Amino acid sequence: MDNSKIGQHISGQFNKELEDVRNKVLTMGGLVEQQIELAVTAFTTGDVEMAELVIKQDNQVDALEMAIDQECMQILALRQPAAFDLRLLIAVIKVINELERVGDMAERIAEMAIQLSNADSNKHDQYYELEHMAELVQEMLHGALDVFARMNIEDVTAITGLDENVDREYGSIIRQLITKMMEDPRNITRMLNVLWVARSLERIGDHACNVCEHLIYMVKGEDVRHLTQEELERKMKE
Amino acid sequence: MDNSKIGQHISGQFNKELEDVRNKVLTMGGLVEQQIELAVTAFTTGDVEMAELVIKQDNQVDALEMAIDQECMQILALRQPAAFDLRLLIAVIKVINELERVGDMAERIAEMAIQLSNADSNKHDQYYELEHMAELVQEMLHGALDVFARMNIEDVTAITGLDENVDREYGSIIRQLITKMMEDPRNITRMLNVLWVARSLERIGDHACNVCEHLIYMVKGEDVRHLTQEELERKMKE
Repeated sequence: MDNSKIGQHISGQFNKELEDVRNKVLTMGGLVEQQIELAVTAFTTGDVEMAELVIKQDNQVDALEMAIDQECMQILALRQPAAFDLRLLIAVIKVINELERVGDMAERIAEMAIQLSNADSNKHDQYYELEHMAELVQEMLHGALDVFARMNIEDVTAITGLDENVDREYGSIIRQLITKMMEDPRNITRMLNVLWVARSLERIGDHACNVCEHLIYMVKGEDVRHLTQEELERKMKE
Repeated sequence: MDNSKIGQHISGQFNKELEDVRNKVLTMGGLVEQQIELAVTAFTTGDVEMAELVIKQDNQVDALEMAIDQECMQILALRQPAAFDLRLLIAVIKVINELERVGDMAERIAEMAIQLSNADSNKHDQYYELEHMAELVQEMLHGALDVFARMNIEDVTAITGLDENVDREYGSIIRQLITKMMEDPRNITRMLNVLWVARSLERIGDHACNVCEHLIYMVKGEDVRHLTQEELERKMKE
């Protein structure tokens, strides 16, 4: 699957508009990826300034979502696209909504970083599991944006398949946190912060999967939401 | 503001299609409202069968979302609507996504009900604050679906204004839960279940606000996401 479908328009201007929208989605995706990277680093190192930067960046992400949304609506109204072009624009509207929510998760992690750094400043070296989970969901989101950029649905199940690992890590982190809370109840508030971060990361993994599903709809015209990983793998082999 | 815009089409068939889509959204909304009601009752009374019903209902909600989505895409492709009709269809696509996520939250509450009923069965009379918060978010969601049905944007700020109360109640519940966890660490697992329920309710309030924002976009063509409550109130008076 290549981008050839995009190049088939009689109107070069329409072509340019669709290409422009896709590029803006990738810009937004890059920004959101950076937000997660910074938010997790801010949390694990206790860097308050970095956390504040993430919170500030979220306005940019929100503004980008609104701009792309408006651009899609204008193209829909003026060009009245059908078939693949219509699905592309609707998929973009849905994908940027996922990315905006990922941005909110990054903001939330940054807020936890600030709260935790107020609570204590010398326990930031205990987040090995969290960092590993963060790497996994970053890999998922990066993969989702990459297949979206290349409109390559063949690699999609390798990305959505990672979600099981994320869920497993999440469950393991929650169990560890409960143990630590029970061992020393003074840990409870601090551990709840970690718990919110783990939960936010788990949600980012879900949003990455949703991006993949929107891509499949765009390319194949098939709605694959709510399928299990096995069902999806079978569907992709059809 | 009345529904007169919907009645202005030369094509009676097109008219019927838009009306049909709106009715299906309201059906989906009604189902999701029922899900929340049952999930909260299941949680506070420990009724496992009721919780299982909620989880089963979620398949219906998901199927409705996919059916409405497809119907919107067909209308977009065949009728190539512009202006209000285009905004209506895009708003519907976004609103059903919010409702689907609300359904997921209800399912989550139902899962917590099942877990908690396994953990202990005689402490289900301690959820007064949670029930009050649930009433608030149910009021918000019902209000959002009602203004959407009537396409009445005048009453929107009264609904979104409730979100501050929800957030306040949420904060208060979290503080109480932390206290209870500290008092008796054996409470921790149980209290975490309550915490997830509170969090899910808080998210439902956010989704109700989002429905209101999509309605405003549909009627006025203005994107009011990311405004504060005061900014929104000012905007609505313009």
